Amino acid sequence: MTRTLIESHVRTATIGFDQPFCVIGERINPTGRKQLATELEAGNFETVERDAREQVASGATVLDVNAGVVYNSNPNPNETEPPLMRKLINLVQTCVDVPLCIDSSVPAALEAGLEVCNGRPLLNSVTGEEDRLESILPLVRKYNVPVVAISNDDSGISEDPDVRFAVARKIVERAADHGIPAQDIVVDPLVMPVGAMATAGLQVFELVRRLRTELGVNTTCGASNISFGLPNREAINAAFLPMAIASGMTSAIMNPVRPQVMNAVRAANLLSDNDRNGSNWIRHNAPMAAEGTAAGARRGRQGRRRRAA
Amino acid sequence: MTRTLIESHVRTATIGFDQPFCVIGERINPTGRKQLATELEAGNFETVERDAREQVASGATVLDVNAGVVYNSNPNPNETEPPLMRKLINLVQTCVDVPLCIDSSVPAALEAGLEVCNGRPLLNSVTGEEDRLESILPLVRKYNVPVVAISNDDSGISEDPDVRFAVARKIVERAADHGIPAQDIVVDPLVMPVGAMATAGLQVFELVRRLRTELGVNTTCGASNISFGLPNREAINAAFLPMAIASGMTSAIMNPVRPQVMNAVRAANLLSDNDRNGSNWIRHNAPMAAEGTAAGARRGRQGRRRRAA
Repeated sequence: MTRTLIESHVRTATIGFDQPFCVIGERINPTGRKQLATELEAGNFETVERDAREQVASGATVLDVNAGVVYNSNPNPNETEPPLMRKLINLVQTCVDVPLCIDSSVPAALEAGLEVCNGRPLLNSVTGEEDRLESILPLVRKYNVPVVAISNDDSGISEDPDVRFAVARKIVERAADHGIPAQDIVVDPLVMPVGAMATAGLQVFELVRRLRTELGVNTTCGASNISFGLPNREAINAAFLPMAIASGMTSAIMNPVRPQVMNAVRAANLLSDNDRNGSNWIRHNAPMAAEGTAAGARRGRQGRRRRAA
Repeated sequence: MTRTLIESHVRTATIGFDQPFCVIGERINPTGRKQLATELEAGNFETVERDAREQVASGATVLDVNAGVVYNSNPNPNETEPPLMRKLINLVQTCVDVPLCIDSSVPAALEAGLEVCNGRPLLNSVTGEEDRLESILPLVRKYNVPVVAISNDDSGISEDPDVRFAVARKIVERAADHGIPAQDIVVDPLVMPVGAMATAGLQVFELVRRLRTELGVNTTCGASNISFGLPNREAINAAFLPMAIASGMTSAIMNPVRPQVMNAVRAANLLSDNDRNGSNWIRHNAPMAAEGTAAGARRGRQGRRRRAA
């Protein structure tokens, strides 16, 4: 049974086929958040602190930390991201005690994060691009951390799921060459917006199934991307995640501060037999509203249809 | 590609792997609805008329009609159900034009419904019980209608999914002996309450996958049974259906007058590439709330994570 362990100094988050779905909070990321970017450049970290606490309170068991701000004063992320990553990791570690996911496309920022992060963070990410493989995998090995593997390579993001699967396999094989076991690779099969590509959902479900059965790896994704450009995104995301979970997906980088989506994940855990005695479901869904008890359910509605003629 | 055709005099509902999920409205059923039962015994059909119109307006494309009321004046359903079924079918056909599903455990009520029903209704149901097979399959053959096959037999409802699969296979084989093709069998793998059996969801997902790949049949279920006895049933049902659809389920007998659940089904259709151009999703989810267009989605959030280092 594949298990990926992500650790802070006091907590362990386990990604696995037999585990509750791992919710990785996506909010600490200035990309596309202009106000947050401005605050970070000005040295104001109040939003980061609030996002950290709020996401954990909402049910995130890992927090993604991305320092990808483009400073007005210095447009070179190779210079600006490493020190900001260090600062953010140090700050978030003082606010909350969950494990972290160090997220950058700048290798120096990833290493800066690894240097200051307690425990065993998740590294986000390596791709199938040759320069990435050769710069990131040694870091993964050196710090003995798990890594997100995004299934694109030097030819870009393929719209062909077979190509994306092949890229994932290449990363797993290359990691093995570096002494990194498959259980420390969490593959992101890449979620396209279904509004732009009608088969985007089906591709992910099929890829996740193959990644799980053929490569035995855990999986993750940027879940909300599926609904980009469409109305009522929360409802699409709240259906997408249960479908992905039914297909075998074991984690997602997502916004936990969305009650409908988080409750969909809780329901999917319950329906996947990853919520012992339904206790997490019942705790979050008000005993006041209960129609009965689990024991009472044995007299379920099935009885109605099965009555004697 | 397996397709089950259900027809009224003017409309066809198609259950199939490449079709939008078929929503069979469950409301016209006095079982467990004491007030409706009292109304029916008194010859008051206002609730039936309202339920028929409301379910179709909410998106049901087939309506289940069950006459299983136990009269205070006559407790023998073999005497009371056939005339009531005739009356209900005739009434519902004048209110709405969708195809119907004739639902009874009384063979004489099924035949009464078949006699008066226009088009090609779905018959609900046969089981693997010997007397059922030998009484219902000749009706299915005589009227050339599709039939719901519930996977229990003379030994009852097994908690072992392998046994339920074997029962389904037996029904499909027995139907073939009667000249009934597999495409006219819609298997109900039986949904247990997850509050009573923790593996209830997993069992259904696995069974649906096997029924589809090994027997090539369409599937249905009494969906709301999954959440019996638990709080916030609508949210559980709204996660269960997308998971079942991702596993290959093609229809359900359900309450369409539940906005969250119906929207989950619409989202699952969209994510299964069974909503051309997302037009059904967009129509039901307010263009006012749209963040952009499908075309705009090509610039999706994936871009944020894939920016150059």
